[in-house]
Amino acid sequence: MQLGIIGSGSWATALAKIVTDNGNPIHWLVRSESIRQHLIHRKHNPNYLSAASFDITKLHLHLSITEMVKACDCLVLAVPSAYIEETLTGLTAADLEGKVLVSAVKGMMPDRNILINEWLLERFQLPLSYYYTVMGPCHAEEVARERLSYLTFSGLSEEKAHEVASNFKTWYINTLVNTDVIGVQYAAILKNIYALGAGIAHGLEYGDNFQSVFIANCADEMAGFLKKVGVQRMEVGSHQGEDPITHKKDANYAASVYLGDLLVTCYSLYSRNRTFGNMIGKGYSVISAQLEMNMVAEGYNASRSIFLLNQQVGADMPIASAIYRILWQQLAPSAGFKLIEEVLI
Amino acid sequence: MQLGIIGSGSWATALAKIVTDNGNPIHWLVRSESIRQHLIHRKHNPNYLSAASFDITKLHLHLSITEMVKACDCLVLAVPSAYIEETLTGLTAADLEGKVLVSAVKGMMPDRNILINEWLLERFQLPLSYYYTVMGPCHAEEVARERLSYLTFSGLSEEKAHEVASNFKTWYINTLVNTDVIGVQYAAILKNIYALGAGIAHGLEYGDNFQSVFIANCADEMAGFLKKVGVQRMEVGSHQGEDPITHKKDANYAASVYLGDLLVTCYSLYSRNRTFGNMIGKGYSVISAQLEMNMVAEGYNASRSIFLLNQQVGADMPIASAIYRILWQQLAPSAGFKLIEEVLI
Repeated sequence: MQLGIIGSGSWATALAKIVTDNGNPIHWLVRSESIRQHLIHRKHNPNYLSAASFDITKLHLHLSITEMVKACDCLVLAVPSAYIEETLTGLTAADLEGKVLVSAVKGMMPDRNILINEWLLERFQLPLSYYYTVMGPCHAEEVARERLSYLTFSGLSEEKAHEVASNFKTWYINTLVNTDVIGVQYAAILKNIYALGAGIAHGLEYGDNFQSVFIANCADEMAGFLKKVGVQRMEVGSHQGEDPITHKKDANYAASVYLGDLLVTCYSLYSRNRTFGNMIGKGYSVISAQLEMNMVAEGYNASRSIFLLNQQVGADMPIASAIYRILWQQLAPSAGFKLIEEVLI
Repeated sequence: MQLGIIGSGSWATALAKIVTDNGNPIHWLVRSESIRQHLIHRKHNPNYLSAASFDITKLHLHLSITEMVKACDCLVLAVPSAYIEETLTGLTAADLEGKVLVSAVKGMMPDRNILINEWLLERFQLPLSYYYTVMGPCHAEEVARERLSYLTFSGLSEEKAHEVASNFKTWYINTLVNTDVIGVQYAAILKNIYALGAGIAHGLEYGDNFQSVFIANCADEMAGFLKKVGVQRMEVGSHQGEDPITHKKDANYAASVYLGDLLVTCYSLYSRNRTFGNMIGKGYSVISAQLEMNMVAEGYNASRSIFLLNQQVGADMPIASAIYRILWQQLAPSAGFKLIEEVLI
């Protein structure tokens, strides 16, 4: 299997390290000639995760996506969702035919409220059965330090997911597989909303007792949404004729790719969503918090996407709705959390 | 309802504060005349949670358990499990007849591996239908600071649980009820084992990614045990003729009294179980860790109790078993965690 990695940010660099540490040569699309030269001469990415050093003999570095895609059977997509469309410009449906695409993107297509696989189907007619995800609680910094982490590979075919996963197993990465390729993506989106909420609660000076109740209830709300959304969005994201629903198994929402990722995001003091939420809780406006952080926390847009999507899904989501109203409808954070207080069990 | 609180430690003092802040006068059994005098004159407990100050007109302070029990309809038991037998010495089954007993004890009877209600049945013929628990993620220190916390009251009668709970609702305490009076007690015991495990993992230098996977899997293992143990131990803890099983509803193990309490215990840096585990992970022997901390962490004895009990219950508990083997059977912590690594999902 010829493996290609698309992206040169922190997570793409971590994935490149994992796959080469597994012993595989890789194709790697980087953004500029200077990054390419730096990797060749200094053996690390100049901009991100510079602690990760590479065996250069294993790297085929590309600047052209079209050329790289030709050389690969399996492409790992690891760019922020905002840059996916731009990064894949120039590719045609024919270029991607028969290729396996593994998404490492934790988010939806911007302004579209659709999952990556839904966009790939629309734009390149990529069937859901060729689409896999790599998700799980995995800070890139801990990959660089080779601390044991767990990655979950999801796709309609459990067998194929195992095959993809086998390229990622190393002494510091354990791989898992499941078939809930839609659910794992939504879990990765929802956790950012809840981490932002945990930040708001912290900013409002709720204590550890409350945080634990809040996060436990977020886990429950997430499970309720995932149970409902999976089959619906599998239909939307599939070709006519594909029958992905028969592949669907009941997921265990306490697994690392669901609850584990929620926990690491909510409890990490370095989470951007938590930091953003903390400012909102302390009374900053959304715009001030964005200016202060010089970025948009993913949970901000996600809260709106999920709010809109849930009008069709119909899950019981009082926590996510209150966070949406705080962020998008000028509900005072303290008033929003009064609503949340009432529903916690 | 005349309410009495048995105990003068930190959690008993927090409960006394909650009930009096709710507006109720209370009877309060304290350990010595000097504590009584201090409470009367200085309005706080001299030894524990001194930040909590009391309205003295609401306190009837007792030194004799027999006298206090006579004056009460409902007794809140809030002493460490090691002191329960000693504290209740002198009481007879007749003294407790018709009294509601609310246990705030998070643990089993020492050396007996039985729940508090099972011991109360044996010693005082107290029926399970007169036994309630107050549990949930609630550090006493945050009660003193009046940070919003959630307490769950459990008992066979949901209506009676509501009635008990109504004495504890304040501006900083939200009350919940459920009927899983056995399960909530085991959850409070299991979380200490897992928090001790989280400490061992930290001592072994696993990172945040791993911790989140570990704790998520602990939540899953706990739910599996609770599903099995509830009905079994309700039979053991009930009078002949009582039919508690018909009262049993399916519990939601993401609720605060289960998952919430697990989270606050595993993630708190102040948890004694986590600190103890950390020393074990760093290579201290159990005896050295006990000497260093000058105490036994609850999770240590609990790991053995649950291991033994699970030989009857038959739940799948590879995590708790590995922790038991590390603590009681000289399995090296690193070897124990290699076993755990293999089962995490």
